[in-house]
Amino acid sequence: MDDRIATLRGLMKQAELDSLLITDPKHVYYLSGFASDPHERFLGLFIPEGNEPFILLPALDEDKARSTSTIQRIETHLDTDNPYVRLQECIGGKVGTLGVEKEHLSVARFEQLSEVLQAEAYHDITSMLNSMRSRKSLDEVERMRLSIQKIEEVLRRGISSVKIGMTELDLVAELEYQMKKVGAEKPAFDTMVLSGPNTALPHGVPGQRKLQSGELVMFDLGLFYNGYASDITRTFAIGDIDDETSRVYHTVLAANEAAIQATRPGVTFASIDKAARDVITEAGYGPRFIHRLGHGLGMDTHEYPSVHGGNENLLESGVLFTVEPGIYIPGHCGVRIEDDVIVTDQGVDVLSSFPKELTVIG
Amino acid sequence: MDDRIATLRGLMKQAELDSLLITDPKHVYYLSGFASDPHERFLGLFIPEGNEPFILLPALDEDKARSTSTIQRIETHLDTDNPYVRLQECIGGKVGTLGVEKEHLSVARFEQLSEVLQAEAYHDITSMLNSMRSRKSLDEVERMRLSIQKIEEVLRRGISSVKIGMTELDLVAELEYQMKKVGAEKPAFDTMVLSGPNTALPHGVPGQRKLQSGELVMFDLGLFYNGYASDITRTFAIGDIDDETSRVYHTVLAANEAAIQATRPGVTFASIDKAARDVITEAGYGPRFIHRLGHGLGMDTHEYPSVHGGNENLLESGVLFTVEPGIYIPGHCGVRIEDDVIVTDQGVDVLSSFPKELTVIG
Repeated sequence: MDDRIATLRGLMKQAELDSLLITDPKHVYYLSGFASDPHERFLGLFIPEGNEPFILLPALDEDKARSTSTIQRIETHLDTDNPYVRLQECIGGKVGTLGVEKEHLSVARFEQLSEVLQAEAYHDITSMLNSMRSRKSLDEVERMRLSIQKIEEVLRRGISSVKIGMTELDLVAELEYQMKKVGAEKPAFDTMVLSGPNTALPHGVPGQRKLQSGELVMFDLGLFYNGYASDITRTFAIGDIDDETSRVYHTVLAANEAAIQATRPGVTFASIDKAARDVITEAGYGPRFIHRLGHGLGMDTHEYPSVHGGNENLLESGVLFTVEPGIYIPGHCGVRIEDDVIVTDQGVDVLSSFPKELTVIG
Repeated sequence: MDDRIATLRGLMKQAELDSLLITDPKHVYYLSGFASDPHERFLGLFIPEGNEPFILLPALDEDKARSTSTIQRIETHLDTDNPYVRLQECIGGKVGTLGVEKEHLSVARFEQLSEVLQAEAYHDITSMLNSMRSRKSLDEVERMRLSIQKIEEVLRRGISSVKIGMTELDLVAELEYQMKKVGAEKPAFDTMVLSGPNTALPHGVPGQRKLQSGELVMFDLGLFYNGYASDITRTFAIGDIDDETSRVYHTVLAANEAAIQATRPGVTFASIDKAARDVITEAGYGPRFIHRLGHGLGMDTHEYPSVHGGNENLLESGVLFTVEPGIYIPGHCGVRIEDDVIVTDQGVDVLSSFPKELTVIG
C-alpha cells in the first residue's frame, strides 16, 4: 500500500495539487488496506503534500481500521458530529488546491464539504486513480489468477450438470450455488445463461426457456474472490449444430485469438480491437459484432480502460482487461468467447485457461 | 405512473421550481415505467412546469423506452453527442430554477450539465422523491407482498435443509439457490446466516463455522422480485438452549410485538422505536440493543424513512418499513426478529407472516 501512496504523491506533484481527499471506499481500501462500507456516513482519506496522511471514519469502524490500515493516523467522527468540520479540525491549516473524485462525489456532499473546507480550487482526480488501478501489482495479479481459477471451476461444475430440458434460470441457480461453494464473495455481475436464438441478444436476460438439442448455450459469468472480479464467457453446442452456427463459432474463436496475438506493450487499444474486428469483417459478419472488444477488470467488473476502436492510448505492462469478440445473428444464434488477459513486458499472459474449441455438452 | 407525475408537479409548484431533471434510473422507472441501466451514458427525465415532460436517453434504448414508458415524448442521443447540448436543444428555452437529485448527481456530471444549461439556480429534490416513494401505491404493496411471500418460501426451504455440521456458508449457498428457484431477480443484500456466538455480531459475515446443537442460528435475508425488495430476519434454536438465551429470545419477540402494536398513523417514528426499546431496557438489556428499530423498504433495501429514536416525523398511511429489534451478548448469543410492516388508515398491516415463536430446527 505504501508504494501506492508514493506513486500517488508523484502524480499529485505533477498535477500541482496541495492535497487529496479520497472518498470512494474502494479507493480508500486500495490505498490503505482498510475495507469498509460506510453507507451514508462520511469516510475520507486525506493526503497533504509533504505531510502525514490520515483517514477520517465513523467511530464504530475505528477498531477495524486500526487493525487493517497501513495508514497509521486514524481519526473518527460521531453521528452527532458534522464530519466536514471534523475534517477541517484534523487538517489544521489551509487546504490549498484539493484533488477530489468528482465522478464519485455527489453534489450534495460536495456542497457540504466546500462550505467548510474552502479550498482554493477543486481538481478531479478520477482519471489519476483509474490509470493507477489499471496497472496491476503482483499481489493483484495473484488475486486475479485465483478469482479466474474459481470461476473456471464453477463453469466446469455448471456444464457437467447441463441436461436437455433444464431452463436457463435452472443453470443460473446452479452456477451461483457453485460460486458460493468455491468461496466467492458474490457474483461479479448478473450471471448470464442464454440458449438457442436468445444467444443472439448481447444483453439478454436468462428466463424459463428450456435447453434443446441442436442449438448453442452461452455462459457469461464472473465472481468476486478476495475483492477481485473475474469475467469469462464460453459458448457450447448441445448436440449437432448447423453449418452456419459452426462457422460463426470458428470466426469468433479466430477473432479472439487474433486480438490476443496482437496484444503487447506499445500498441494502441484500438489496434487490438481492429485485429479481432478484421477477422469478423473478412468472414462477412462485420455488422454483427456490435460492441467493443473488452474492458478493464480488477476491483470492479468494468473499469478503466475501455478497449474499443476509438481508444488510441498505448498498452502498458501490467494492464489487465477482457478480450470478448462476439457475433450475433438475430433470431438464429450468437457466439461470444471472452478471456481475461494481462499485458507483460514481452507480450501477453492469458489468465483464463478454459478450453475454447467447440465443445458439445448435455 | 401518470398520477405520480401529477403528485410531483404539485410538490414542484410548492417548492417554486420551474422544471425538474430526474437522473437516477430508479426514479425514471418509478415515474415512467421505463427501466434501464445506462451505465456511464446519460439518462434524464425532464419535467417543465405546465409543459409536456420528456425522457432523453441513449439511442440504443429507444425501442425499449417506446414500448414501456408512459411518458410519450422520447428523445435520444448518440455516443458521439454531448448529451447536455442535446438536452438543451430538447428543452428549447430557458430552464429557470431547476430541481435535481443532488445526492445522486456526481460533481463531474453537474459541472458538464451546468456549463450547458445555465439554470438560474439548482435545488435538491432528493427528499421530495424519497418522501413520495415512502408512501406505497396499491400496485407497490402487491409487489411487496409477493416479494415477501417469496422470501418466506425460501426461508422455509432453507430451514428444512438445516443439519448439524453444515457451515454457515453452506446454508447461504442453499438459500441463494432457492431464491433463484422461486424466480427472484437477485438477493436484496448479502444473505446472512450466523451461528452460535457469531449471532452476537450484528454485522457478522457468514463463514466456515459449523452448526452445533445447543445454540442459535440467525437468518437475515431478502430478495428482489419485480423490482421490489423483501427483508426478514428469524432466529432459531438448534437443540436445547440455555435459560439466558431463551430469555433474550422472548425479550426480543416482546419488543418486536410492542413496536408493531404501537404502529399507527399520527405517532412518531421515535415512539415506535421507544416502544421496542422500553421492553428491552426493562428486561435489563438496554445497552445490548445497539441499532435503530428499522428502515424503509421498497425499490431499495434501505430507503427513507429511517426508524430511530431521533426521527420525530409522523407515520402516515402507506408507509412501509422494517421492525427489527435485536439483543447482542458478545461471545454468547444474539437474537433479531424482523418483520416488514405497512401503516394503514386503521393501524398496521404486518406483511411478513413467518412464525415467530421460538422454534427448534436441525
